[in-house]
Amino acid sequence: MARKIILDCDPGHDDAVAILLAAGNPGIELLGITTIGGNQTLEKVTYNARQVCTVAGLTDVPMYAGCTRPLVRPVEVAEDIHGDTGMEIHGYELPEPTVELAEGHAVDFIIDTVMNSEPGTVTLVPTGPLTNIALAARKEPRIVERVAEVVLMGGGYHVGNWSAVAEFNIKVDPEAAHIVFNEPWPLTMVGLDLTHQALATDEVEAEIKALGTDVADFVVGLFDAFRKNYQDAQGFEHPPVHDPCAVAYLIDPSVVSVVKVPLDVEIDGRLTTGMTVADFRAPAPEDCTTQAAVDLDHEKFWGLVVDAIKAVSK
Amino acid sequence: MARKIILDCDPGHDDAVAILLAAGNPGIELLGITTIGGNQTLEKVTYNARQVCTVAGLTDVPMYAGCTRPLVRPVEVAEDIHGDTGMEIHGYELPEPTVELAEGHAVDFIIDTVMNSEPGTVTLVPTGPLTNIALAARKEPRIVERVAEVVLMGGGYHVGNWSAVAEFNIKVDPEAAHIVFNEPWPLTMVGLDLTHQALATDEVEAEIKALGTDVADFVVGLFDAFRKNYQDAQGFEHPPVHDPCAVAYLIDPSVVSVVKVPLDVEIDGRLTTGMTVADFRAPAPEDCTTQAAVDLDHEKFWGLVVDAIKAVSK
Amino acid sequence: MARKIILDCDPGHDDAVAILLAAGNPGIELLGITTIGGNQTLEKVTYNARQVCTVAGLTDVPMYAGCTRPLVRPVEVAEDIHGDTGMEIHGYELPEPTVELAEGHAVDFIIDTVMNSEPGTVTLVPTGPLTNIALAARKEPRIVERVAEVVLMGGGYHVGNWSAVAEFNIKVDPEAAHIVFNEPWPLTMVGLDLTHQALATDEVEAEIKALGTDVADFVVGLFDAFRKNYQDAQGFEHPPVHDPCAVAYLIDPSVVSVVKVPLDVEIDGRLTTGMTVADFRAPAPEDCTTQAAVDLDHEKFWGLVVDAIKAVSK
Amino acid sequence: MARKIILDCDPGHDDAVAILLAAGNPGIELLGITTIGGNQTLEKVTYNARQVCTVAGLTDVPMYAGCTRPLVRPVEVAEDIHGDTGMEIHGYELPEPTVELAEGHAVDFIIDTVMNSEPGTVTLVPTGPLTNIALAARKEPRIVERVAEVVLMGGGYHVGNWSAVAEFNIKVDPEAAHIVFNEPWPLTMVGLDLTHQALATDEVEAEIKALGTDVADFVVGLFDAFRKNYQDAQGFEHPPVHDPCAVAYLIDPSVVSVVKVPLDVEIDGRLTTGMTVADFRAPAPEDCTTQAAVDLDHEKFWGLVVDAIKAVSK
Repeated sequence: MARKIILDCDPGHDDAVAILLAAGNPGIELLGITTIGGNQTLEKVTYNARQVCTVAGLTDVPMYAGCTRPLVRPVEVAEDIHGDTGMEIHGYELPEPTVELAEGHAVDFIIDTVMNSEPGTVTLVPTGPLTNIALAARKEPRIVERVAEVVLMGGGYHVGNWSAVAEFNIKVDPEAAHIVFNEPWPLTMVGLDLTHQALATDEVEAEIKALGTDVADFVVGLFDAFRKNYQDAQGFEHPPVHDPCAVAYLIDPSVVSVVKVPLDVEIDGRLTTGMTVADFRAPAPEDCTTQAAVDLDHEKFWGLVVDAIKAVSK
Repeated sequence: MARKIILDCDPGHDDAVAILLAAGNPGIELLGITTIGGNQTLEKVTYNARQVCTVAGLTDVPMYAGCTRPLVRPVEVAEDIHGDTGMEIHGYELPEPTVELAEGHAVDFIIDTVMNSEPGTVTLVPTGPLTNIALAARKEPRIVERVAEVVLMGGGYHVGNWSAVAEFNIKVDPEAAHIVFNEPWPLTMVGLDLTHQALATDEVEAEIKALGTDVADFVVGLFDAFRKNYQDAQGFEHPPVHDPCAVAYLIDPSVVSVVKVPLDVEIDGRLTTGMTVADFRAPAPEDCTTQAAVDLDHEKFWGLVVDAIKAVSK
Repeated sequence: MARKIILDCDPGHDDAVAILLAAGNPGIELLGITTIGGNQTLEKVTYNARQVCTVAGLTDVPMYAGCTRPLVRPVEVAEDIHGDTGMEIHGYELPEPTVELAEGHAVDFIIDTVMNSEPGTVTLVPTGPLTNIALAARKEPRIVERVAEVVLMGGGYHVGNWSAVAEFNIKVDPEAAHIVFNEPWPLTMVGLDLTHQALATDEVEAEIKALGTDVADFVVGLFDAFRKNYQDAQGFEHPPVHDPCAVAYLIDPSVVSVVKVPLDVEIDGRLTTGMTVADFRAPAPEDCTTQAAVDLDHEKFWGLVVDAIKAVSK
Repeated sequence: MARKIILDCDPGHDDAVAILLAAGNPGIELLGITTIGGNQTLEKVTYNARQVCTVAGLTDVPMYAGCTRPLVRPVEVAEDIHGDTGMEIHGYELPEPTVELAEGHAVDFIIDTVMNSEPGTVTLVPTGPLTNIALAARKEPRIVERVAEVVLMGGGYHVGNWSAVAEFNIKVDPEAAHIVFNEPWPLTMVGLDLTHQALATDEVEAEIKALGTDVADFVVGLFDAFRKNYQDAQGFEHPPVHDPCAVAYLIDPSVVSVVKVPLDVEIDGRLTTGMTVADFRAPAPEDCTTQAAVDLDHEKFWGLVVDAIKAVSK
């Protein structure tokens, strides 16, 4: 049976790939897409999400805009990685979006969808800052026990990118992340330890290019821009395509190995604010509800992505 | 013209008096009452609010329940001051409430009321933790420029009660307070510096008792319980009746003198978390949007309360 | 019997007056002067201390240099208040100092003096950052029970000058202050609440000028420069002459009223680091060892200063 | 030429082995031993140090006691790991110490030794909390440029033992560690990432036992007790013998591989206080003065320890 998910995202090059993977894999039923200010402003990432859905022909998935800014801290965007538009692209011209936003707020869509579905059937997949999810949990606490699980891209137990020890999605709204990580729903952190294994290598890009479809050209355009930015900003040879890893884990858990471990979020440190603190000192207790992604099956992962691009291209 | 307000409260003895004052004074148009977990759990304070409205005959004011808990920190209630029920009372039997909750969430009622009213016409009067107001500002940022002003009971520039330097409403949800104090709406802090002047002295209580009405008996019952708790917990001779001071300021600004001063909320200190930090070092800059209440006209204030009890008693 | 003190200072205009007051009043036996980086660098304040002692003819009081920087934080000096030299002066030419530094470290002088004196006979009077005192207490913990008391200029319970709620001496080395305030020796905080009453008014300056001595001219020069800086930087009409207040309290306790109150130092806040937190919520417990200065007898205070200038001028 | 070191320790089972290794290897010239409250109180660890030196016949190495407590935080000892005595031992009776403490303070011994030696010749090897070293650097800042290097056991970039992400020596006095890590001397952190490789396996213990000397019996007794405590408290099969790794690195750098990486210490977090934060995001800048130990050559390391036990046994 397909996994019903709400994808809460801030496209974002890798968010775009996550949308395509969710759209193109039969194991996922995309209940809706919600947007959140993150990689760029809410306005820009929402526009980008509409463009991606237009390219992918996703006309029947409702889309809702969410929060414009973090709970407590000022807005911070990842322009060095995602460019001025939030989804800078090379060698491909994106169309004007024909997919429209639905009326209403992302937070209410999340709450209503969860409360109106059977308990344990809806999975939240945040791939941006956790502001929408945190607000939903505070506005309607009963969603916490009704959600199937939260599988998020963000954080990392031994790797940081927005500080020595913190990842962007968590660091820009650490209070929201603290809320989400401390609710007792099952939570899987697909963090940088995992996603830095999801590199768009030359082979991967060549394989996608060979598909020869419009969507494939779009993805190649994304990778070219993403690679350049990651080379300039963080010294990567190939860009880590973070967000689809969370979706891939839901499609096929054998793509991403996980370990049960207590996780929490630092909100107060001088050097460590936004760090996702994992306690590996002892086996996780029985009632531990959090787990961290550890190893990626690179081949399987990119196989899923390529298949999805094919499926969406039809 | 009457001031249109939404009273966001957690009754609470003094919240009850604030409701009565708002209900009984023609200078106030009570658009709605919203509740927030604070002095006691959301469930208890909401029940109490329904009881107060029943006693006061406030059957046409919509009431909405809000958040059950602070944004980031665990729930903390003021049982030593407000008792197990949150509105412990001596010598008066409260009726079963006949006033019902409206459907919907306090946060949405606040947002919808502000967005559907003329800009600059709706004033928010929070007398509990600021979680509802903070969530409303994050969910719908446009309310900030449409609200007339925020006049809140909480904080204090030189007085604390929940720590050496922090007041209860701010300390139990400092992140929410930080959000509310840092938005650019006009904000008046009616803090402990002011409300510790609003003592329910023997003369005040005698005057209310002499009214001889059911509502007056209710208030006397509130004061008796409140006095006892304040004597035991904080060594007060007479209880400070905080929350109606915020309403009184809106009815008649001459009751409460204020000073323009930059205000902010500490969210990180070991000793100072939840402190409302006022910067009195220099005259407030022109664009300062915050002010603090300084001096209470005790006679005028209690005159307003007595008049309101009379009016509500009819 | 004269009070034996070690004056730990960072001259500093008001430190200079504190030295003169200690030197010129028979109620004080100045065992030594130690210097600490604060108002300016250690090098500059030590040179200034030597100049003051030269002007005052204090040739038999040993002087030791102490720490160059705060324990944890970077060096911060008060150049806007004390000028580039740390003791900027108008209309008076200071001589080259003839008083020399003793060999050894301020911290060891403090320790050795306390350990080699009868218990309860030596009082520490810090008027700069508390780095030397903190290091002495950590290096030789036994001094804590042997010191008679610590009477320090710094902090404030309701007034700040280096942030909205913190005073310079405490804020530049809050960890040192935290150490000193938390040791169980008797500690009196002569803070800004008190010292902002010690204004060098026109009358005061005229009276000193009328003395017509070289030392008086020096003090008048200090006041003129100090006034100008305080006017420009903090909007004062007359400069608050902080440091001699601590010495005056030891000469005659009736000059400075004090209140017993628990005091601690915030070392972690975003807005409140370096705040001296006083807990006025209840009467101080029996075993409270800290007190705060409240009211200054302006006339008595300046009388002591004038008398000391006369005495030193001989 | 032998490396001249001051060993600043808190024996402690592994500190004892560090002393033996320093004493028994010709590559080390032990200028002195200083003690610091850590694994147990200063009094206990100093007594233990005297016992170890007595067993080892180290009668000509001066020993100085240092600080009794951390700079800012309260005393915390590792009784679950080192027992009530701080060097709990099984099956071996330690003698009354005949080695005496020298007069004077550890901090002054460190300062005087460094200032009276040729620049760049003295290496500090702290294997306990960094209070003594921090105080020395603050009392006499000139030691920083004269010390050859600081090679310390403590911290860890991916492993914690006293919290999820902090190691004991750093966590109990994070402010001292912050001071030491931020001075510009060359600093090598031999942290838990490395020392958890230094396990006293059955083979290691058998090899030492086979030496059949009194010192070997002492070490076997140490391991037996240490193993039991580590099994009970932290679930280790064999105990990690941390402290001699720092000494081994100085004897033969090929025993411990290191990587140049910026290091700092968190002093403010809710979850991360005392964490040693390493920034692996990019190659360390040219002027980076810190490095972290990564891989241990297990065989070489234990070979050095066994040889030292033999040498000391003569």
